Amino acid sequence: MAISNIRYGEGVTQEVGMDLQNLGARKVCVMTDNNLGQLPPIKAVLDSLTKNGIHFQMYDNVRVEPTDYSFMDAITFAKKGEFDAYVAVGGGSVMDTCKAANLYASNPGSHFLDYVNAPIGKGKTVTVPVKPMIAVPTTTGTGSETTGVAIFDYKELKVKTGIASRAIKPLLGMIDPLHTLHMPERVVANSGFDVLCHALESYTALPYKMRSPCPSNPINRPAYQGSNPISDVWAIHALRIVAKYLKRAITDPEDREARASMHLASAFAGIGFGNAGVHLFHGMSYPISGLVKTYKAKDYNVDHSLVPHGLSVVVTSPAVFTFTAPMFPERHLEAAEILGADIRTARIKDAGFILADTLRKFLFDLDVDNGLTALGYSKADIPALVKGTLPQERVTKLAPRPQTEEELSTLFEASMQLY
Amino acid sequence: MAISNIRYGEGVTQEVGMDLQNLGARKVCVMTDNNLGQLPPIKAVLDSLTKNGIHFQMYDNVRVEPTDYSFMDAITFAKKGEFDAYVAVGGGSVMDTCKAANLYASNPGSHFLDYVNAPIGKGKTVTVPVKPMIAVPTTTGTGSETTGVAIFDYKELKVKTGIASRAIKPLLGMIDPLHTLHMPERVVANSGFDVLCHALESYTALPYKMRSPCPSNPINRPAYQGSNPISDVWAIHALRIVAKYLKRAITDPEDREARASMHLASAFAGIGFGNAGVHLFHGMSYPISGLVKTYKAKDYNVDHSLVPHGLSVVVTSPAVFTFTAPMFPERHLEAAEILGADIRTARIKDAGFILADTLRKFLFDLDVDNGLTALGYSKADIPALVKGTLPQERVTKLAPRPQTEEELSTLFEASMQLY
Ligand SMILES: NC(=O)c1ccc[n+]([C@@H]2O[C@H](COP(=O)([O-])OP(=O)(O)OC[C@H]3O[C@@H](n4cnc5c(N)ncnc54)[C@H](O)[C@@H]3O)[C@@H](O)[C@H]2O)c1
Ligand SMILES: NC(=O)c1ccc[n+]([C@@H]2O[C@H](COP(=O)([O-])OP(=O)(O)OC[C@H]3O[C@@H](n4cnc5c(N)ncnc54)[C@H](O)[C@@H]3O)[C@@H](O)[C@H]2O)c1
Ligand SMILES: [Fe+2]
Ligand SMILES: [Fe+2]
Repeated sequence: MAISNIRYGEGVTQEVGMDLQNLGARKVCVMTDNNLGQLPPIKAVLDSLTKNGIHFQMYDNVRVEPTDYSFMDAITFAKKGEFDAYVAVGGGSVMDTCKAANLYASNPGSHFLDYVNAPIGKGKTVTVPVKPMIAVPTTTGTGSETTGVAIFDYKELKVKTGIASRAIKPLLGMIDPLHTLHMPERVVANSGFDVLCHALESYTALPYKMRSPCPSNPINRPAYQGSNPISDVWAIHALRIVAKYLKRAITDPEDREARASMHLASAFAGIGFGNAGVHLFHGMSYPISGLVKTYKAKDYNVDHSLVPHGLSVVVTSPAVFTFTAPMFPERHLEAAEILGADIRTARIKDAGFILADTLRKFLFDLDVDNGLTALGYSKADIPALVKGTLPQERVTKLAPRPQTEEELSTLFEASMQLY
Repeated sequence: MAISNIRYGEGVTQEVGMDLQNLGARKVCVMTDNNLGQLPPIKAVLDSLTKNGIHFQMYDNVRVEPTDYSFMDAITFAKKGEFDAYVAVGGGSVMDTCKAANLYASNPGSHFLDYVNAPIGKGKTVTVPVKPMIAVPTTTGTGSETTGVAIFDYKELKVKTGIASRAIKPLLGMIDPLHTLHMPERVVANSGFDVLCHALESYTALPYKMRSPCPSNPINRPAYQGSNPISDVWAIHALRIVAKYLKRAITDPEDREARASMHLASAFAGIGFGNAGVHLFHGMSYPISGLVKTYKAKDYNVDHSLVPHGLSVVVTSPAVFTFTAPMFPERHLEAAEILGADIRTARIKDAGFILADTLRKFLFDLDVDNGLTALGYSKADIPALVKGTLPQERVTKLAPRPQTEEELSTLFEASMQLY
């Protein structure tokens, strides 16, 4: 169980220049997306760098929901810059792009697919040192500041995949809740669903002792090890915060307590799932966002179609839990209770339905689109969605219940409409 | 907030040889105490080293409740050995000795007082790299496998003090609950009280925002930062485990679930207090153990007088909480509830008394000696006990309420008898 360094507090971003000085950094790469480039979080970082005399170059071309092409563009920039430290200021899109840029710039001879998760890429172990990276998350969602994961949309295959290695975990995550005040409503909602799902999936993931294979040499064990007594603590804690604060954070931009709590919860859930893993919601979400047609995400200031990550993940959650609950019904029931269900008279065999119903109510209340249909999919897309899920075995095999192609089909079908 | 790597599971100790191989270690120092030298945990470690062809030397001369002299003996051994990795197999005494040996052997030119906490020592920042250390805890208490702290009894001053630096935090803590099966009853009890106090103190420590001074450069901030939203999670979680399992772990050596749970709780509480800090119980405990006269600790297989650390800490807890509760009464009440108090009709102003009473019952039930008197102290010793507490400002200043010398006197006096 590896955990990350995080620093929390309003205004901690002002310290980033000192941290870089302490690291002895001489040439720093600052990454962001061009929407954020205009907003206060990036200003706070640049001010601190200037004040501490840190020489830097700025890359603000990160794509929201990055692709292999956008990763490569950032990698090219990083290679040219020969940086000795990185600062990512943004949501998961920025942090993930920065991790990839750092990794490949530190290994200039490597091919892009070398480190991409097998079976899509070669899933090579990272053996060369990468540069220190500081992550300044501006969404309340991915927890990417605490994980060794970088996700992108692989255009050729129309499927999301990623790179997973402890080596690309940021040295420090600076959680400055001041940055959450600028988030538009749907970014709060969707990134909050990501936290919800990280917590729910890591808590219901296959227990670490049941995972196979279990390589005898510790160095060969995967980053995602299955649920365990430590990740459970983080998952449950994050889930409680989501239950208490997500709605408040979405509906009231002035509710600093709620937004700050969600900001911390995203890191907590990140520490949990970064060790335990996620499973079916995430596995099935990758084709849902990869195959996007014309869906335009409200409040996302971008010019391409996209299904925001958190939305693509949460939309299958009721169907998936109805399917997985027979394996660890107590945990499913416990999750339902935390999310507000009255389980005093509940029967254990109804755990899946109860949790699914609780989630449906929760999502309806938070204005989530009515299922895959509302995201532009129809029954005819199911084979492609299933095909895109199959290579996600790194996560899908952590589901508490194994799935046939037919079962995956049924799960997508059951997710066409939520209410 | 810096956190540690831990690996948990029955039998994980068998992997230590592979980990050392992965680290490229060629000459390893294995440390333990001579009581443990005869027991299965050390055998498991040596078997794994042998099996993986790791060359090692064994130091089994660790003193239970180490002193400056015993630290120095271990340091001399480490300097001679020129090791490139360390494995500590034992309780806090062994792990702390190993941390010190590693630190000073990595800085052969330094003087012993250089890294000892100010004002007793010079409290220098560690700037040279130390060797990787793997900690295999065999007690369910200190959490030293997760902290950058090494405690010893400074003989000249008759007071305990320590070394605190992130640099000496073990690379990996291997929590193998099989090792807990050999612990004698009082070692389970006393090390369990240490967990209890780590959790209670870090939860009630001064909040991190109220700590002063708060150095503007992050690198100068102390390891102990005050209570914070992350350490709180660990503290509360550990406290719940103690409430549920400590008694079972003490009374039934065959209760594997209880012993394994306490083993994890010690690491959880360690992660909590390693970041938040401890305060008055620990500050006052150092003279209580440092000034020991003739008290012989039951079940401790040693030939010198000693007040076991956990006992020296817990004995002042009722008095201290009566004193500190006015500052953060809700937290005191919450702790009392977790430890079994019915607080439905409690008045907030009684928080201190309620928690103190709850603790007294808890300790009585677990056969704790009746206060400082039972440990061999009388009123006449109070000035010396106070004098020994004053230099512990690194921790005492984290107490939620500042203390005059007179108040410290009163707290010692109130701890003479518990029941
Ligand atoms: N690495 C991991 O561990 C991990 C985990 C989950 C998700 N992800 C990935 O992260 C990406 C999603 O990241 P995300 O949900 O954080 O969103 P994002 O980074 O894609 O950003 C979403 C939008 O919000 C804007 N935005 C961000 N912060 C803002 C702020 N403070 N004020 C105003 N606008 C702001 C951005 O400019 C962008 O338009 C996906 O690619 C997903 O796959 C990674
Ligand atoms: N570094 C830290 O963060 C930290 C925190 C708290 C306490 N401490 C220090 O740790 C020391 C106390 O450590 P401790 O409470 O773990 O006890 P310990 O290491 O002093 O051991 C106590 C006794 O138990 C025996 N023992 C240990 N494990 C055993 C096992 N599995 N089976 C049988 N016997 C076993 C030992 O041989 C010894 O006789 C004190 O010096 C204290 O100040 C350090
Ligand atoms: Fe996610
Ligand atoms: Fe302690």
